Amino acid sequence: MPANNPKPQSELKTAKGTRDWVGRDLLLRDHIFQTTSDVFKRHGGIPLDTPVLELREVLAGKYGEDSKLIYNVEDQGGELLSLRYDLTVPFARWLAMHSNVKQIKRYQIAKVYRRDQPAISRGRLREFYQCDFDIAGVYDAMIPDAEILRIIVEVFRALKLGIVIKLNHRSILDGLFTVAGVPQEKIRPISSAVDKLDKTPWEEVKKEMVDEKGLAEEVADKIGEYVRRSGGLREMIDILEDQELSANEQVQSGLADMELLAHYLTAMDVIDSVSFDLSLARGLDYYTGLIYEVITTPSGRSNQVGSVAAGGRYDGLVGRYGKQAVPCVGLSFGVDRVFTILDTRQKKNTSDLKSEADVYVMAAGGKGFDGLLAERMEVARQLWDAGIRAEFTAKVKPKMLQQFNAAKEVPVAVILGQDEMEAGQVRLKDARAGDGDKVEKDRGRLVSRESLVEEVLSLLSKIALEEGQD
Amino acid sequence: MPANNPKPQSELKTAKGTRDWVGRDLLLRDHIFQTTSDVFKRHGGIPLDTPVLELREVLAGKYGEDSKLIYNVEDQGGELLSLRYDLTVPFARWLAMHSNVKQIKRYQIAKVYRRDQPAISRGRLREFYQCDFDIAGVYDAMIPDAEILRIIVEVFRALKLGIVIKLNHRSILDGLFTVAGVPQEKIRPISSAVDKLDKTPWEEVKKEMVDEKGLAEEVADKIGEYVRRSGGLREMIDILEDQELSANEQVQSGLADMELLAHYLTAMDVIDSVSFDLSLARGLDYYTGLIYEVITTPSGRSNQVGSVAAGGRYDGLVGRYGKQAVPCVGLSFGVDRVFTILDTRQKKNTSDLKSEADVYVMAAGGKGFDGLLAERMEVARQLWDAGIRAEFTAKVKPKMLQQFNAAKEVPVAVILGQDEMEAGQVRLKDARAGDGDKVEKDRGRLVSRESLVEEVLSLLSKIALEEGQD
Repeated sequence: MPANNPKPQSELKTAKGTRDWVGRDLLLRDHIFQTTSDVFKRHGGIPLDTPVLELREVLAGKYGEDSKLIYNVEDQGGELLSLRYDLTVPFARWLAMHSNVKQIKRYQIAKVYRRDQPAISRGRLREFYQCDFDIAGVYDAMIPDAEILRIIVEVFRALKLGIVIKLNHRSILDGLFTVAGVPQEKIRPISSAVDKLDKTPWEEVKKEMVDEKGLAEEVADKIGEYVRRSGGLREMIDILEDQELSANEQVQSGLADMELLAHYLTAMDVIDSVSFDLSLARGLDYYTGLIYEVITTPSGRSNQVGSVAAGGRYDGLVGRYGKQAVPCVGLSFGVDRVFTILDTRQKKNTSDLKSEADVYVMAAGGKGFDGLLAERMEVARQLWDAGIRAEFTAKVKPKMLQQFNAAKEVPVAVILGQDEMEAGQVRLKDARAGDGDKVEKDRGRLVSRESLVEEVLSLLSKIALEEGQD
Repeated sequence: MPANNPKPQSELKTAKGTRDWVGRDLLLRDHIFQTTSDVFKRHGGIPLDTPVLELREVLAGKYGEDSKLIYNVEDQGGELLSLRYDLTVPFARWLAMHSNVKQIKRYQIAKVYRRDQPAISRGRLREFYQCDFDIAGVYDAMIPDAEILRIIVEVFRALKLGIVIKLNHRSILDGLFTVAGVPQEKIRPISSAVDKLDKTPWEEVKKEMVDEKGLAEEVADKIGEYVRRSGGLREMIDILEDQELSANEQVQSGLADMELLAHYLTAMDVIDSVSFDLSLARGLDYYTGLIYEVITTPSGRSNQVGSVAAGGRYDGLVGRYGKQAVPCVGLSFGVDRVFTILDTRQKKNTSDLKSEADVYVMAAGGKGFDGLLAERMEVARQLWDAGIRAEFTAKVKPKMLQQFNAAKEVPVAVILGQDEMEAGQVRLKDARAGDGDKVEKDRGRLVSRESLVEEVLSLLSKIALEEGQD
């Protein structure tokens, strides 16, 4: 039986930053999973499922400062374990364990764990889902990178969400810092400061560089000239090629990648969805080439939800496990953020916790009516045997009104009467037609038990057709 | 591109008792999930997803001696957390938190965690899946219990696995112990000893009762007379009603339940799949009525894999959270054990890690051929836009033989040539026909770019039809 929208009580609760998923929320979430994995499969993706628990040493040294957010499992004797922090490192661990796998496109949709400050209304949780797609292996330059960006466009098109993909390249960024005069040991900290430009004004970022990180003011200003630039991919390549920057070898090699990419993105019809943004730096240490972050439009650079997908090329990570070096490029969708956006947009007028039954089996009768429970069970069994979703009320003698109300929640009602059952017949009706009173008076048309399954299926397709659900 | 079967290397590994799922294993596992959830939905089940992390106090005191198998998360400041041990207690916690939910059929398919001794070959892991279906709420007696048993039959029928459902009733068992002369405080320990009868001979179980648990020998013998009995449900009810046993009030009430159940199981066509087994006791403390365990036939009482599903009625658990008392009955499928059985049965002759692409886009050409990469991208994009699963080789100038071999992995090949592309045409062929040589010579028939999507879809349905996949 469907229940009403649940209202949680106070003391009993889920762990901080975690939540239960049920009803409409779960359906919407599964719609996102389905849409995403359909696109992943369209591109030849193979599913991989790794454990939530990983050996602590597998995760060690992969997340920089964010390692403090890893959940460790208590030492109860035996191995030291942690909960996975993302899906990228477990994938790299899997690749390193299977040295005969030289090329693979894999996807994974699963929960990850971070002891971060939760903000549920903005879709930031401690237990949350990631949807990852990665292409591992040696291929010709920038072809897999272009396909990953194409996948992003296809997923958000299918979800009917407008997006912009901000692109940058670690080589260009590092070269730019070198040309501007940043000492090698300060490149990562300065990079982290630059990455804040999507939320923080330039003056503050500059202050952090000069006051906190000890950069010369003229160096900071020079950085500022570059990193506040963004625009179309081709336009930005042209601008950068004209600068003194392009004398730097790292910048040169990054620009060559970006030119190839522009060529491929044009062929794949992705070029209009990207923007080249020199302020994009991404926190994680392991990126080595192209990096990207996806924001929804028209939210632009500042929005409540933050990026809805992100990723990049990481050619060194698998090799750090000492087995084989496998270059990779990948992306991760922040499902809970996408969920928050779609949920806000969706009208909240449908009843929650509804079962998906197609048929409600009920009994009707006059004086001395015994409820026909065994008969309702038999008819339900007949429908289940045919794979039809059917329910009945778990009462020996259910009230008539209660049954008619329950029937209104499903497309088709099968009504049993004593005399009709004895004659091998039941009544069949479109349960949602008319209001309660009418429903109660219209007791449907007689069909034989032998033809019931066929008649129900035919009525269900008629109803589906009329509702345009196909 | 598909890779070969992966061979794991030594040092790097997953945590003890956990495993990665990929390729054919994952497809088989998903088939089990899909089959099970189809049946759950057919019975009006609503999905619920709870967190892996639960507050430690939520799990406390629910699992008796097995509590030592719970994984605790390290105290890193903040709440004390554990990993869920099953899906029943989190469901009870959810019910207790939502006091306006009076009746619900919910299902959940998710990983649970137990620090048990793993035995992977027998499907016993530390991280493993459970598939649970529970009916919560006040209904007329034994109707939900009967539907749960019906669900078990439908799931294993769909999986094409022969089973027997062993039934017992906690009231009958407790009454039987009382009549035999077991002191009240020894009922649970004696019950645990009896539960071992599926793996241990009676003489050893008796020894445990008398020597370890201090039961009088004549009491043990009396228990032995009863608990070694099993048979058809109606037959056993008749036997028990004739005994002195039935004077006991608990036994009486249990037998009344079993009689109702026999009636309902007949209506639902489940009666031939059950056996009444007085030695079935079930370890968990929280069961209060009907209990059951499912074994595969012909394995009978002793088998490597153990029970493949189990459950029972637990009317007191939700009330222990002090909010509302909600009677429940439910079942849990041991997916990994079912997987082990089906996997052993399945022929292992298919290539692993195969992508599910339907179309391979390739280029062919003579001297001076430039690989047509952008053109392959454009054609792939055209197919992706139409929702078709398509791949191409991520090389600027792929070798011809390499492409023809890749093409053999998918149903349809689209072959691009320079002149044909300029004329707005491509070649289309059934890629799996003939051997490598023939494939290479037969370059398919010309179709226009405009009609490509339509032609591909029509060829794909022709191939599917011929393979009888529909």
